Amino acid sequence: MKLLIGNKAYSSWSFRPWILMRHLGLPFEEEVVALYQPDTAERVRRFSKAGKLPVLVDGDIVVWESLAIIDYLADRFPDRPVWPAERAARAHARSASTEMHAGFQALRNRCGMNMRRMPKAIALADDVKADIARIVTLWTEARERFGAGGPFLYGAFSAADAMYAPVVNRFHAYAIDVPPVVAAYMTAMMALPAWQDWQRGADAEPWFHQPYEVVE
Amino acid sequence: MKLLIGNKAYSSWSFRPWILMRHLGLPFEEEVVALYQPDTAERVRRFSKAGKLPVLVDGDIVVWESLAIIDYLADRFPDRPVWPAERAARAHARSASTEMHAGFQALRNRCGMNMRRMPKAIALADDVKADIARIVTLWTEARERFGAGGPFLYGAFSAADAMYAPVVNRFHAYAIDVPPVVAAYMTAMMALPAWQDWQRGADAEPWFHQPYEVVE
Repeated sequence: MKLLIGNKAYSSWSFRPWILMRHLGLPFEEEVVALYQPDTAERVRRFSKAGKLPVLVDGDIVVWESLAIIDYLADRFPDRPVWPAERAARAHARSASTEMHAGFQALRNRCGMNMRRMPKAIALADDVKADIARIVTLWTEARERFGAGGPFLYGAFSAADAMYAPVVNRFHAYAIDVPPVVAAYMTAMMALPAWQDWQRGADAEPWFHQPYEVVE
Repeated sequence: MKLLIGNKAYSSWSFRPWILMRHLGLPFEEEVVALYQPDTAERVRRFSKAGKLPVLVDGDIVVWESLAIIDYLADRFPDRPVWPAERAARAHARSASTEMHAGFQALRNRCGMNMRRMPKAIALADDVKADIARIVTLWTEARERFGAGGPFLYGAFSAADAMYAPVVNRFHAYAIDVPPVVAAYMTAMMALPAWQDWQRGADAEPWFHQPYEVVE
């Protein structure tokens, strides 16, 4: 299998399937397609007409969209714990992951993932604060109701943690004030060997144009 | 099981799990929460802190987000053909559904689902045209590669058709010019008994505030 991803410093969508695959020990090669270049879209479109990263290539099968890649992996490797096994936890994890997939635009627009940003607070608009409050509520609910078996949202690491990994970076990088249950969860995430691998990759990338508007 | 939905005339997200459940003959009761009322969000929040429709309630389990509800049903009723069975078709259907879940904002914003609109063309901005072109490409690819077994995107009706049902209405209601393969697919969708059931429900709703900006 080959996973096409964007730059590790900035590509939040790429981080999701990558950290899941690395954490689960699934064999794959990665190909980085540099973002924000004149030929970026054309390079991606050789694999996927949607023109967006990440893309998973598994023989003749091409899968695009991070959440669809994650569900493809769940189908392809049914013995791996991609989603929580228990029905209520699994339903909650799927809802939370889908809410992430389609939502939190304000947070995504104003606090872009940046694996190389020195943590520093910024002024937060009300819509960003509302996104943060909703995520804090959601994570707290998952931890309290389903998190007894481990330090992640549903105990053991699952697809939901992969979907929210870029938000963990955002909360960290923009020094968002969070309650202890959320801080502990973030610490567990950032201590994962798979997270550290991604971080090292981001640190090693050539520095280039910072694409996000930075509000200091 | 109970499915909380918005008004049938306008609630595109509600239409998705509803048409799937009705088509598959799954037993459920529906509860309509009138949209755009002062207490709409509060009524929804009694079931789901996300505050958005649709919401599926199955005993103690509450599932929100249309795509998560669809996957919950696939888990809960493994004998029902929610997703295509064949791996490549299933992967394509999941990617297409997830692309819909998170994308096509321009089309969604400018051509709101309206089950009671008399079909009439409007001026289309370039970003709306780009969304339409992408969807036409995607549907054509699905029909050509995976549609041999029936008139729907992947042959038999599946979750992907449910996810795109509101787009079928949009293409119809705004008289979008589409190639024959897409027109035939739309005809098959709108002829479904489950579609007709939803349409009758939309027609029977009390008329109220048209929430979408209509560009004539």
